[in-house]
Amino acid sequence: MAKAVLTPRAVDFPRWYQDVIAKAELAENGPARGSVVIRPAGYALWERMQRELDDRIKAAGAANAYFPLLIPESYLRREAEHVEGFSPELAVVTIGGGKQLEEPLVIRPTSETIFGESMARWIESYRDLPLLLNQWSNVVRWELRPRLFLRTTEFLWQEGHTAHASEVDARAYARRILHEVYEDVLVNVLAVPVVPGLKTRRERFAGATSTATLEAMMGDGKALQMGTSHELGQNFARAFGIDYLAASGQRELAWTTSWGISTRLIGGLVMAHGDDLGLRVPPRLAPVQAVVLVVKEGQGVAAAAGELTAGLREAGVRATLDDRTEVPFGRRAIDAELKGYPVRVEVGPRDVAEGQAVLVRRVTGDRSAVPLDSVVRLVTEALGVGQKTLYEEALARQRERTAEVASVPEAIEASAAGWARLPWAAVGDGGEAELNAQGVTVRCLVRADGGVPIAEDEPDLVAVVGRAY
Amino acid sequence: MAKAVLTPRAVDFPRWYQDVIAKAELAENGPARGSVVIRPAGYALWERMQRELDDRIKAAGAANAYFPLLIPESYLRREAEHVEGFSPELAVVTIGGGKQLEEPLVIRPTSETIFGESMARWIESYRDLPLLLNQWSNVVRWELRPRLFLRTTEFLWQEGHTAHASEVDARAYARRILHEVYEDVLVNVLAVPVVPGLKTRRERFAGATSTATLEAMMGDGKALQMGTSHELGQNFARAFGIDYLAASGQRELAWTTSWGISTRLIGGLVMAHGDDLGLRVPPRLAPVQAVVLVVKEGQGVAAAAGELTAGLREAGVRATLDDRTEVPFGRRAIDAELKGYPVRVEVGPRDVAEGQAVLVRRVTGDRSAVPLDSVVRLVTEALGVGQKTLYEEALARQRERTAEVASVPEAIEASAAGWARLPWAAVGDGGEAELNAQGVTVRCLVRADGGVPIAEDEPDLVAVVGRAY
Repeated sequence: MAKAVLTPRAVDFPRWYQDVIAKAELAENGPARGSVVIRPAGYALWERMQRELDDRIKAAGAANAYFPLLIPESYLRREAEHVEGFSPELAVVTIGGGKQLEEPLVIRPTSETIFGESMARWIESYRDLPLLLNQWSNVVRWELRPRLFLRTTEFLWQEGHTAHASEVDARAYARRILHEVYEDVLVNVLAVPVVPGLKTRRERFAGATSTATLEAMMGDGKALQMGTSHELGQNFARAFGIDYLAASGQRELAWTTSWGISTRLIGGLVMAHGDDLGLRVPPRLAPVQAVVLVVKEGQGVAAAAGELTAGLREAGVRATLDDRTEVPFGRRAIDAELKGYPVRVEVGPRDVAEGQAVLVRRVTGDRSAVPLDSVVRLVTEALGVGQKTLYEEALARQRERTAEVASVPEAIEASAAGWARLPWAAVGDGGEAELNAQGVTVRCLVRADGGVPIAEDEPDLVAVVGRAY
Repeated sequence: MAKAVLTPRAVDFPRWYQDVIAKAELAENGPARGSVVIRPAGYALWERMQRELDDRIKAAGAANAYFPLLIPESYLRREAEHVEGFSPELAVVTIGGGKQLEEPLVIRPTSETIFGESMARWIESYRDLPLLLNQWSNVVRWELRPRLFLRTTEFLWQEGHTAHASEVDARAYARRILHEVYEDVLVNVLAVPVVPGLKTRRERFAGATSTATLEAMMGDGKALQMGTSHELGQNFARAFGIDYLAASGQRELAWTTSWGISTRLIGGLVMAHGDDLGLRVPPRLAPVQAVVLVVKEGQGVAAAAGELTAGLREAGVRATLDDRTEVPFGRRAIDAELKGYPVRVEVGPRDVAEGQAVLVRRVTGDRSAVPLDSVVRLVTEALGVGQKTLYEEALARQRERTAEVASVPEAIEASAAGWARLPWAAVGDGGEAELNAQGVTVRCLVRADGGVPIAEDEPDLVAVVGRAY
């Protein structure tokens, strides 16, 4: 019913994205280049993602801690690939307390090095392993082409850092986080289907021996890397002296991992589920699951709206009441659509007189008049259906827009509309360079059965390629 | 029973504090000057404080948001007192992405200026007021004499920023936060008695027209400022153009507030409740309320310990099982005391044979053998008693060590042992300078009835003075 206030996706997807972020009041640019102000509606999404992730991280045995923002520049230099990867993106503090610093301090772009230094001191023997840590923090990576949530100079994230007695243990834990924490939250809470896979050598994290990823397809067929989990081998253990007394009596280097997921997820959520009317927030995530909208004042309306809101809350629905009748109803209805509240319950004088309310389901868009005493039951049902439908729609899109091809040129062609899958053996390092030259990347390598490979030289791997954010 | 592993408080309180922080594994110094690594045991305390504060902040109507870490230097200069107050403490980024920046960026020491800039854009009319925002973040203030949790270059906090249509509304909200959020959490969760009062002009926040504070007495009689809530008058509104269209049709400047509480609270908790055996964590706050300690292995011990832990959890107690019998029991018992778990339940073979367990209450230190089937009930009781006792002990200390005096010299003398209260009329600006010269400060001004004054020129105010962290 509401007239579109956004650039249609088909016309200009990036502009539609910017419009949604602005009109749904999720975020805006900050004053310094590439910085972002996350507004309450955007932050509320992040808080709910955080809670879901944090519960699962704790269930996986990791404890939260907090490490310093400012890292001595020399720390980064200790791991060669790491410093090479991050140097171009660093923000450097050279003045502190009014004085030039003797050693400049880098604002953490990630915290492997500073965790490494502490882990080396905290770990004495095999009894201290595994050491499973996580932190919620901000990080800074200088960004020349910022895009809200997707690439900003400062962003918020969680970064886990763990140390293990063996490569097998480290790998198992990195994979456990990938599947039991990240994939579970993405699929079951954010309703975003993902392809778990292995990054190629070219795409892996600076300093890692192996990077596993979860790739999701956005509304325009492009890929977004939603979260990554790295095996760091013994690279950081060697650089920082993270060793332990083994049961054998020998000192051994530990095996470390790191894994992170960021506010980029908010951008992914918008682009995976949004439509031409705005956001569509999956009910399990939604800070507001149902809004009760007073159409206009009238006999019994306030009482009915209040009772409906209370009844919904009692049933465990995160419900809010919008009785700002001084604002035109149409504008509020459009706003509710923009913000993607899963269900809207409209109540006006005529509805109350007829003992009914109008239910509008955001995901499917359908409207129906329902008896007042069945609103709670129907809203609860609509939330379940909405969650499922969003996932199914996104999965159907991913399937429709993924082409099975046999060669690099075909893969480049298919990437105009979505993803391509082709034998990794038909790509190789040369083929990957060819793809990259066309703005296409290998998003990940997967096994024929969908499993995540351990190494890129496993036989019969499939490369999933596409354009990406 | 456990032999002291800490410097006794009476011998050297600051050293005792450092010992507790280290031995209870709460935190340690980071590599850059004044930086801190908050270890899992310390961070768990912060997470629980955060949750308690955040729930109340939301109940007071404020919404969380997130503003940038990096602030253009020019922003700070817009409010004269503010820049003067913070200039000596700034950390400045001069290099970004490998290039010298045209305008240096300051790492936020606090965020009034950057919130101000957005608020000015977001507020159009009186309908947008009050605007109630909060953020959880890190801030950096260069610190030359760092002390873990109390004064560190980087710390974590919450900072609220609000805009209102009138001075009366702004004041009411700043005071609401002081009492309903901060005082409630401090008194009822942290079990720390506080004196709410008004800061003198000399002690107030840079740029504020009025700063209300909550002062607590530590174990050595010194004061710690636990949280502050500021009225900013129209200073920041004027500097950033935060105005609104009033119902009258006139444009009016808004009235703003800010309020914050930080990881300093962890330090306050340690110094308010700790004893010569270590931390004593108030049960309502404690991440671990009861630890079930297997003394040594033996017939039925594992089963009994497991059942006790499960039973406690079922009863809503945050209980943990320590069955690391490879570590000597004595060391684990000392560790439990150091970490301040409110209740310890010891179970060994002899206990199980006799159908009992030993309950050790951390706050009072008393031990008793109790039947296995009454452990859950008695632990629950002990938690309630422990919470109450910690508060009462701290309150009794504050009362005993606060002297009523009549003159500045007497106040200085009394400050050697604790606090002094004297008529503010007997101090004045000259007396305050005299106190400061002796390392004593006016912690706050209070009304005769204990209320928080609105201005320091109210008649019959009492000055609470003492040495402070």
